[in-house]
Amino acid sequence: MAAWGERLAGVRGVLLDISGVLYDGGEGGGAPIAGSVEAVARLKRSRLKVRFCTNESQKSRGRLVALLRQLGYDISEGEVTAPAPAACRILRERGLRPHLLVHDGVRSEFAQVDTSNPNCVVIADAGESFSYQNMNKAFQVLMELDNPVLISLGRGRYYKETSALMLDVGAYMKALEYACGIEAEVVGKPSPEFFESALQQMGVEAHQAVMIGDDIVGDVGGAQRCGMRALQVRTGKFRPSDEHHPEVKADGYVDNLAEAVDLLLQYADK
Amino acid sequence: MAAWGERLAGVRGVLLDISGVLYDGGEGGGAPIAGSVEAVARLKRSRLKVRFCTNESQKSRGRLVALLRQLGYDISEGEVTAPAPAACRILRERGLRPHLLVHDGVRSEFAQVDTSNPNCVVIADAGESFSYQNMNKAFQVLMELDNPVLISLGRGRYYKETSALMLDVGAYMKALEYACGIEAEVVGKPSPEFFESALQQMGVEAHQAVMIGDDIVGDVGGAQRCGMRALQVRTGKFRPSDEHHPEVKADGYVDNLAEAVDLLLQYADK
Repeated sequence: MAAWGERLAGVRGVLLDISGVLYDGGEGGGAPIAGSVEAVARLKRSRLKVRFCTNESQKSRGRLVALLRQLGYDISEGEVTAPAPAACRILRERGLRPHLLVHDGVRSEFAQVDTSNPNCVVIADAGESFSYQNMNKAFQVLMELDNPVLISLGRGRYYKETSALMLDVGAYMKALEYACGIEAEVVGKPSPEFFESALQQMGVEAHQAVMIGDDIVGDVGGAQRCGMRALQVRTGKFRPSDEHHPEVKADGYVDNLAEAVDLLLQYADK
Repeated sequence: MAAWGERLAGVRGVLLDISGVLYDGGEGGGAPIAGSVEAVARLKRSRLKVRFCTNESQKSRGRLVALLRQLGYDISEGEVTAPAPAACRILRERGLRPHLLVHDGVRSEFAQVDTSNPNCVVIADAGESFSYQNMNKAFQVLMELDNPVLISLGRGRYYKETSALMLDVGAYMKALEYACGIEAEVVGKPSPEFFESALQQMGVEAHQAVMIGDDIVGDVGGAQRCGMRALQVRTGKFRPSDEHHPEVKADGYVDNLAEAVDLLLQYADK
């Protein structure tokens, strides 16, 4: 077992990234990552608290959870912290009426939000809906505003589907930032507010929690900046160069979630 | 006449941007900007040397010149400095085989270039061809390379068509830069090499030349960094905030090319 396993002593709660840790998306919904279904079940049978913390913004939480249950996971909507509901709260609090550049699969999350006469743009992982026409429309809405507000559900560079790496919302966020000369507000990892809300919902302090994800910057770096420990799995979008990232060093690297859970069950109570 | 007109003393050559100065693109090819056809004619009848310096990368030079002639301009291909031919020279010199993310209208410029087994990506203003699928493909090509090379034909944020502002290649260049963690090489304005090649083709030194464009950063700032003077026209993508740009101040602002030519013909010889 990894020597750094001792760094997991005192962990009481575990935040799990979903895409690239539990499953890889793709044709027919995607495929579970080997060993992860059992690993989640073991974790949930243990004394550790578990919560899922995702930047998934193509699907509503309901659809995501339904897909994961189909793949064999024991998971319910109430256990998932996701950016769309967090964005809806912000829109309501600030009286913002968004132009939505989002995937049809997540549109239902915004059903209660006033989208007339938009005074901001919300961008999510829109996938194929990132057409030139849709990007141009979002750009034009922003350029018409005196105080352009761009809210981005996550800032991921890319994610892994079963077939290949795919561009994520962060790339398109950067395109609009540059074109409009503005800076987006990110809702989702690595925003500290987002991690903190997940910790609060789990009822665990940052120093008692560990984040497990496949994104060295968004998951590992973001969680560490909030005072959490963080492990990177060598699944999903992981690339060997991540272990030599110039700015972020995980508390540990594991081959997959199953290995992370082995270590947690061995060391967390010590 | 503007007091700053005296700053045009000693000008011997004029570089003219095309889109937003000569015409606005759009339905049916676009429309000439009022007074610009006559202004170019007057300039060409004067003792000043004239060259067109464009970042247009949706059309081949041949098509662009054909369109401008239709709109009434006296212009030939040999008078135009454009990024696609400059990129082809670079590709040849460095043995690069591009994956092309470009508009169909400019593809003919790359007819002589080997595009098999690509070892770089060339991105241009692809317009509607900036689909998610095409962007993803370019991203995947770059991520497969040990030394990813991204060449961008210009880095414009947006341009103006007759109907509206439109996202330009720079936004998509930024998206790929961010997703891949790389920096693009820009061929076109504001790259100094590009301005210098236009000056050389015109046979005029930088300090004897003035650039006239609608882009405060790409045209005005870029030309000034090469030692040229530069005027911004209040046509095309010009926005009133450009006159208070935090980093770039034009040598003068004119309502349109016609006013610029009035001033040049009055002051250049002094």
